[in-house]
Amino acid sequence: MMNDDRLFPAEPTTRAIARRLFQEVRNLPILSPHGHTDPRWFAENQPFPDPAQLFVTPDHYVFRMLYSQGVALEDLGVPRVDGGPVEADPRRIWRLFAKHYRLFAGTPTRLWLDHSFESLFGLTELLSPANADRHYDVIAEALQRPEFSPRALFEKFNIEVIATTETALDDLRWHKAIRDSGWRGRVVTTYRPDSVVDPAFPGFRDNVASLGAIAGEDATTWSGYLSAHRKRRAFFKTHGATATDHGHPSAATANLAPAEARALFARVMADAPSGADAELFRAQMLTEMAAMSLDDGLVMQIHPGSWRNHNPLLYAHFGRDKGADIPIQTDYVHALKPLLDRFGNEKSLTVILFTLDETAYSRELAPLAGHYPVLRLGPPWWFLDSVNGMRRFRELTTETAGFANTVGFNDDTRAFPSIPGRHDVARRVDCAFLAELVATHQLDEDEARDWARALAYSLTKSAYRF
Amino acid sequence: MMNDDRLFPAEPTTRAIARRLFQEVRNLPILSPHGHTDPRWFAENQPFPDPAQLFVTPDHYVFRMLYSQGVALEDLGVPRVDGGPVEADPRRIWRLFAKHYRLFAGTPTRLWLDHSFESLFGLTELLSPANADRHYDVIAEALQRPEFSPRALFEKFNIEVIATTETALDDLRWHKAIRDSGWRGRVVTTYRPDSVVDPAFPGFRDNVASLGAIAGEDATTWSGYLSAHRKRRAFFKTHGATATDHGHPSAATANLAPAEARALFARVMADAPSGADAELFRAQMLTEMAAMSLDDGLVMQIHPGSWRNHNPLLYAHFGRDKGADIPIQTDYVHALKPLLDRFGNEKSLTVILFTLDETAYSRELAPLAGHYPVLRLGPPWWFLDSVNGMRRFRELTTETAGFANTVGFNDDTRAFPSIPGRHDVARRVDCAFLAELVATHQLDEDEARDWARALAYSLTKSAYRF
Amino acid sequence: MMNDDRLFPAEPTTRAIARRLFQEVRNLPILSPHGHTDPRWFAENQPFPDPAQLFVTPDHYVFRMLYSQGVALEDLGVPRVDGGPVEADPRRIWRLFAKHYRLFAGTPTRLWLDHSFESLFGLTELLSPANADRHYDVIAEALQRPEFSPRALFEKFNIEVIATTETALDDLRWHKAIRDSGWRGRVVTTYRPDSVVDPAFPGFRDNVASLGAIAGEDATTWSGYLSAHRKRRAFFKTHGATATDHGHPSAATANLAPAEARALFARVMADAPSGADAELFRAQMLTEMAAMSLDDGLVMQIHPGSWRNHNPLLYAHFGRDKGADIPIQTDYVHALKPLLDRFGNEKSLTVILFTLDETAYSRELAPLAGHYPVLRLGPPWWFLDSVNGMRRFRELTTETAGFANTVGFNDDTRAFPSIPGRHDVARRVDCAFLAELVATHQLDEDEARDWARALAYSLTKSAYRF
Repeated sequence: MMNDDRLFPAEPTTRAIARRLFQEVRNLPILSPHGHTDPRWFAENQPFPDPAQLFVTPDHYVFRMLYSQGVALEDLGVPRVDGGPVEADPRRIWRLFAKHYRLFAGTPTRLWLDHSFESLFGLTELLSPANADRHYDVIAEALQRPEFSPRALFEKFNIEVIATTETALDDLRWHKAIRDSGWRGRVVTTYRPDSVVDPAFPGFRDNVASLGAIAGEDATTWSGYLSAHRKRRAFFKTHGATATDHGHPSAATANLAPAEARALFARVMADAPSGADAELFRAQMLTEMAAMSLDDGLVMQIHPGSWRNHNPLLYAHFGRDKGADIPIQTDYVHALKPLLDRFGNEKSLTVILFTLDETAYSRELAPLAGHYPVLRLGPPWWFLDSVNGMRRFRELTTETAGFANTVGFNDDTRAFPSIPGRHDVARRVDCAFLAELVATHQLDEDEARDWARALAYSLTKSAYRF
Repeated sequence: MMNDDRLFPAEPTTRAIARRLFQEVRNLPILSPHGHTDPRWFAENQPFPDPAQLFVTPDHYVFRMLYSQGVALEDLGVPRVDGGPVEADPRRIWRLFAKHYRLFAGTPTRLWLDHSFESLFGLTELLSPANADRHYDVIAEALQRPEFSPRALFEKFNIEVIATTETALDDLRWHKAIRDSGWRGRVVTTYRPDSVVDPAFPGFRDNVASLGAIAGEDATTWSGYLSAHRKRRAFFKTHGATATDHGHPSAATANLAPAEARALFARVMADAPSGADAELFRAQMLTEMAAMSLDDGLVMQIHPGSWRNHNPLLYAHFGRDKGADIPIQTDYVHALKPLLDRFGNEKSLTVILFTLDETAYSRELAPLAGHYPVLRLGPPWWFLDSVNGMRRFRELTTETAGFANTVGFNDDTRAFPSIPGRHDVARRVDCAFLAELVATHQLDEDEARDWARALAYSLTKSAYRF
Repeated sequence: MMNDDRLFPAEPTTRAIARRLFQEVRNLPILSPHGHTDPRWFAENQPFPDPAQLFVTPDHYVFRMLYSQGVALEDLGVPRVDGGPVEADPRRIWRLFAKHYRLFAGTPTRLWLDHSFESLFGLTELLSPANADRHYDVIAEALQRPEFSPRALFEKFNIEVIATTETALDDLRWHKAIRDSGWRGRVVTTYRPDSVVDPAFPGFRDNVASLGAIAGEDATTWSGYLSAHRKRRAFFKTHGATATDHGHPSAATANLAPAEARALFARVMADAPSGADAELFRAQMLTEMAAMSLDDGLVMQIHPGSWRNHNPLLYAHFGRDKGADIPIQTDYVHALKPLLDRFGNEKSLTVILFTLDETAYSRELAPLAGHYPVLRLGPPWWFLDSVNGMRRFRELTTETAGFANTVGFNDDTRAFPSIPGRHDVARRVDCAFLAELVATHQLDEDEARDWARALAYSLTKSAYRF
């Protein structure tokens, strides 16, 4: 399935250039600066349970497509909020998945899965109802072998560093366990404070109380609340964190006078803050986080623009992260101005911007990142982490922001076995883009080779301060 | 003019793949599930009058371009609202058209017209002032021959089924006449209730009164009004309808409590409803129509986002549909939520979404259709029904929604002779897109062949329940 | 550096077509209908001072990229508002520029600079720290030679006509001096009234007072103010102006009744007009300017959608035009309606629209320009004046608006030596686009050749009435 020229331009001269560029980067170590793998895997190093649990049930890219075509989530073993019955037989789940595998034609999910099947399990035949059982058996058998343990795969994948994402309230016990184990794999955490920063988050006030309790601060006061953040950030840094991450509905920032901020905090900590107050508080907190980053050096990542849980029926039955998050139009030019007015010209602060709204690439994000020293552009994210999505990103940002204002690739995944396949796609697409520049005489091949390495490795390393 | 490799990628390997894929679909029957041909043509089977009436005077794609470059609509024979004089000599109209034919370079209109001229009339030379009269004569002569009658062309075009569009008040006499004639061509109607659903439509209250009268219901009450719709839908189904169509300014939907809906209906039926009430009523009616579709199985098509009659001078002189409809920014994520909250997870309902705002493809439409079981994406529409428009549609939707959440091609035309040319373009562009996936090793050619057939035929057949 | 096939598609058949098309246009005279060169250069014909002053210090494309990567503007010699010290040694500035030259990989700035270095100064090696001094010496030496004087370059560049841009208050002394000098180079002015039309412009009321004084009108009255504009426009016409230019935050237009307009003028001339009044006044003035254009024949250019001086710190230290202008979302369909309602169908008026928001191309601008006789689309502007930006413009507008509703290329630059390189890029990209149409059999090569010449020369000449 995995032709060695995949994703390279068909035109032979350009393809040959892409192939040469790719040779320079295909074996570079993987830097995975943003993702959602479970540190417990690496702490405990237990085998992954079965093919369905590995590839189907937890992957919202997979089950959203099947759901859209009428497959019930229960039949894919997705747990119900009410604990009601769902399919428990992984082989039956796998067969259902195989039956619909054709739906992934033309999607990145297909590329990642085929890559895993072939490169990890030696499965060279396209998954189909006819071979579903055989594929299942091959994968299930392999998962029990030591070379398929999480740590063994981590090493096989040539991962130099992987960042996980933990909430501000996490005790980081698994990160501690990894460190205490003596294993040398570098797994770092990321500070994700949404649940204590977003007044609309379920349990916000309880979360803030917990934050205070953990940090030993009176987080019911504005200054205690900020101190608690500072302490938690410092604690996360002791577990390797080099970055924070902020998943907000919009990119709004604010820069209130201290007294106003204090009053706002009091309001959102009281009962039922208004939507406007919730938005303003999130906005203010991005600026507060930037101020803390200027002090402690954590790189700031802003991931705006997703309407979470758009489907209330699905949310009621299955909870969060079930493929029903839908992007919305996202403004950056107005939204970021308060933060940029205060910190935009700081050379020691890095703010990495992501988007689900491609209209912002050429109109807003590239012009902003091509001017403000603090800004860098994160790679295409979520629905846009795809062959065409990545090509459009380069086409729409490079001419204004160049390559150096971007930060390489993020796999942003919980699907651990897909990580090499995801980086493979990103490296191939970037090499294809560079090859086009060379073939049309806009860039020397020597330069393209340097940029290929930068996009695959060194820009990530420097932007995330690894 | 019509090279057999037209619209295929120039790169030879990819072109060869596209050519092979196209062989699989070029002769498939045409399914035309959405369009504006006149059923009277097929009922009466009279010859088309003359070349100007066939190709120029009724086609707003043609005369808008000429108008933009200073040609008066009067000189193209477009009738004035006040009955004032316009050019009546079809040959003079044709010459004017030929004189400006070069303006269509790079447009789909050019592809469709050249296809008609060559494939129907054997005209292989590009239309120009020098050959205008000869082209005219060839076409005018042919139109009088029996093999150019509407029914003969229908059969020559290999149309399996064509849908026309009639307002809710139409008596469907021509559809009845077709059926009564014994002719076997399958011409079905589509339920288009805009004139009785949109309070801003000219004559709205009279239209509602007519709706009640035709249906034998008291349509001045909310329940009688809804019943009248149900009866009309049933009547349309007896004339082959499998779908409804809704051309609204926005995609707004609403889901009011019955008492609120009743009160809203009373307000819009009173004098001069506010713009907000008109919008809310249209929004509520989309949800009501979805409820009826769940009962009667009609597929629902939503065509939002056109500012109709943007040019008041042109509207005053020539009326509707004169090339002065301009797309506007269109939101789907907020707009559709009320309808989706109620019906989004229904497996037996199909709602097909169209757009004139391409920014929604990757941001909103593909994520929505790649999740909600009721949603499918209609093909690029109107200004976007073009080579690049169709390519962008695939590039911007496939990676998130796949192919199976799309519904094949709609020619959406009143220009009957252009139908084969339009489907030819769509099939070629889809084969070119699939060929790129094959050439870059993202898809096997076997799979691509299956998808080519699905995009050209079977997805349309299943989505529209033909 | 400058391969003769640069920017042509890599596929050999298409490249060969592009090459043939380009032969038709590469030596056509340059029409530069919109730009910001300094007429004083041509009036005085003094040598350009040094390489840094020519290529680095005044070019916000160059220093914004360097600034985004942490280079201080002081170190590039950009003058401070407070007169504080900045780098004064051009050779040191040049070395700093050379050190960061790699950042321009993949940007149009790189293409323009390489073109200048090689075609003007014979420098065939990519600029780098290693050769920075040698490049500096070569350029510095050349600039002292007579063949590098402004007029000599003008002639060498084969410029048929170049338009500069002057404010409404300019005395056009340098234009007069050029004319008086007997030199035959055609340098025309453009009427740019922003400073006397925009109530938010610094010193607006003083500017209006000056306008009245210069024109001999009482510009404190609405009618006197309009008369002053008419007189100034006439004066600009005597110095060659064929166009006006309007750089507004939005594309808003208005068409107030005379009494309302008069009252609005009184309000904005009083202290501190509201933001809404300022916007409405700018909007009204676009319509007033259109009315005047209908009388005096000046072509109207509207450049909306830039948030000027987004970075307050930078603005405070360095002033306007320092790379901190950021595009914003821009609506045309609602915004232009008042002007179009009044003048949209006039055949003798030309309004050229520009955008920094590419989402408007297929949704708004192409449909508008493909209908309204007064409208034409300006070429991709500012951040979009790039290889991919120009390709997207053609792909997103041609199918709806055709080629004839566009106006060829504008270099829009203050960087005089970059002008041939900019036109070279535009001509190559257009030839590449046309070659794709030919290679995919959408256009005959004969037609493509005609359109190539139209895009490179004749459409500009006719649209700008040169």
